[in-house]
Amino acid sequence: MSEIIRPVRPGDEIELNAMIHELAEFERASADCTVTEKQLGEALFGDHPTVYGHIAEVDGQAAAGALWFRNFSTWDGVAGIYLEDLYVRPQFRRRGLARKMLSTLARECVAGGYTRLSWAVLDWNVNAIALYDAVGGRPQTEWITYRVSGSELSALAGMSGPAPQRSSPTGS
Amino acid sequence: MSEIIRPVRPGDEIELNAMIHELAEFERASADCTVTEKQLGEALFGDHPTVYGHIAEVDGQAAAGALWFRNFSTWDGVAGIYLEDLYVRPQFRRRGLARKMLSTLARECVAGGYTRLSWAVLDWNVNAIALYDAVGGRPQTEWITYRVSGSELSALAGMSGPAPQRSSPTGS
Repeated sequence: MSEIIRPVRPGDEIELNAMIHELAEFERASADCTVTEKQLGEALFGDHPTVYGHIAEVDGQAAAGALWFRNFSTWDGVAGIYLEDLYVRPQFRRRGLARKMLSTLARECVAGGYTRLSWAVLDWNVNAIALYDAVGGRPQTEWITYRVSGSELSALAGMSGPAPQRSSPTGS
Repeated sequence: MSEIIRPVRPGDEIELNAMIHELAEFERASADCTVTEKQLGEALFGDHPTVYGHIAEVDGQAAAGALWFRNFSTWDGVAGIYLEDLYVRPQFRRRGLARKMLSTLARECVAGGYTRLSWAVLDWNVNAIALYDAVGGRPQTEWITYRVSGSELSALAGMSGPAPQRSSPTGS
């Protein structure tokens, strides 16, 4: 069997989009997952990419996918990698692909001078947690992630206050 | 009193670096905070920025700072904003600056078509948590953030597996 892990290339958005929806179903959140191939293709391969990815192929089949972006540590003063999605298709599990994907991204970190590889896991996903502990991951248990979205985001944006001067992050 | 919130500009790395170290001290993590003005200036204003920022000025003094980057939601298929640091200097608290900073970033989200504004808070920081609840933030309590860094990152990078083909995120 041949097995490779490689950066994504145009066309991969089809399999990656399918994998995101498969993962969302596993995470019991299908209703919240609305991403399309078109959105993903634009985000990965548009003029101003907002996400990056790797694919694991086994005998030419898309077996696993990783989607990630760069974050930034204000304590270390350097960028890092945040792994947003890691998914191994059921028929390709138990052959170490998730670990190899994490290893690949760790090498991206080292090559880029980044000090951290980060991600999040659902607290009931015990198989994933066992792997993450085994590869040297440390749970950041004293930190609580917050999110504002939907109508709350619009409401927060509409609050009184100084008019924002727009900054210009790439492609925003 | 005059009060403005504006995107950062070259030179602001001096006050922002000071604020990061003040915040790290408040978070009882001074020893882990090694960022320098030079690193921050490069990250904010170099050829390939890896972080963005806003400053709140009160009567021309740097009163509060926000450092953020773009993340990506694989469920929504669009980018978002992750607020890495939000700090209000003690003498400028209790005048709503933190809320105004969050509002400014919410407007950045709306203007960019982003669906989420996210951040993390230490679980003992009850004053911050009260504000985050009040502005419509939702704690993502079922998610555990993991991180690999230091010697564990090097070890993970050095594991056996296919040699990585380097992808090319901007400026990595």
